[in-house]
Amino acid sequence: MFELDPRLQADAWALGDFPLCRLLLSKDANYPWLILVPRRAATTEIFELTEAEQAQLAVETAQLAEGVKTALKADKMNVAALGNVVAQLHVHVIARYTADPAWPAPVWGKAPAVEYRPEQLDALKDTLRPVLPATFTWVEN
Amino acid sequence: MFELDPRLQADAWALGDFPLCRLLLSKDANYPWLILVPRRAATTEIFELTEAEQAQLAVETAQLAEGVKTALKADKMNVAALGNVVAQLHVHVIARYTADPAWPAPVWGKAPAVEYRPEQLDALKDTLRPVLPATFTWVEN
Repeated sequence: MFELDPRLQADAWALGDFPLCRLLLSKDANYPWLILVPRRAATTEIFELTEAEQAQLAVETAQLAEGVKTALKADKMNVAALGNVVAQLHVHVIARYTADPAWPAPVWGKAPAVEYRPEQLDALKDTLRPVLPATFTWVEN
Repeated sequence: MFELDPRLQADAWALGDFPLCRLLLSKDANYPWLILVPRRAATTEIFELTEAEQAQLAVETAQLAEGVKTALKADKMNVAALGNVVAQLHVHVIARYTADPAWPAPVWGKAPAVEYRPEQLDALKDTLRPVLPATFTWVEN
């Protein structure tokens, strides 16, 4: 049975579900930082998913990255499955800008997390709404 | 027409070709650090590939990550498409160990690159040979 890792639960908000993945938003306003978590128990590597799930993860990752890049006019998308700290399989999809606090380095360990202002968070969700595919379901909140 | 980015060409050796991707090995002996480069011109984001190419990239990435993890008894695989410095689309597939110089941080910017000794490089290639799929062709050298 799938349960979200407690650290992901603490560090990110759940926005909703793709057919395979839960979509999280990191509580760090430095970067628009989305995280896809396949709703599968006891999985740490992409290749541990079935082939169909791997294909679906690739589709959801690409749909998300393309939508976010377009909606947020990002300079580059960073897509990464690391999992050295949180073992539960999760894929970072991060919108990067040449003016962001870590550019051109990867974001991990670079800048202290910045809190979202409530209206900034609402604005981000509103911007993402039209670019997420019809297969995505927002959580009620 | 596909041409390998000059920086990738300088920092890595070409090992051979999957059906879609050129396989490179980073010249940094700190980590077994493979890089997949789709042989497509003018591509910087995964979602710019055709859907068939995206699926093929996912297959090649998973085959490589699983083979490397098994052959090298890695603790975790890190898979990432960043491209903030080298724009040409490339996917890092890095074998990580809890005792490596960057653990648990991502590898970028952590430890100065270490040169491979020739026999160490040959041993690594010999270890990888049996785990790469039949669709992979080694370069002559």
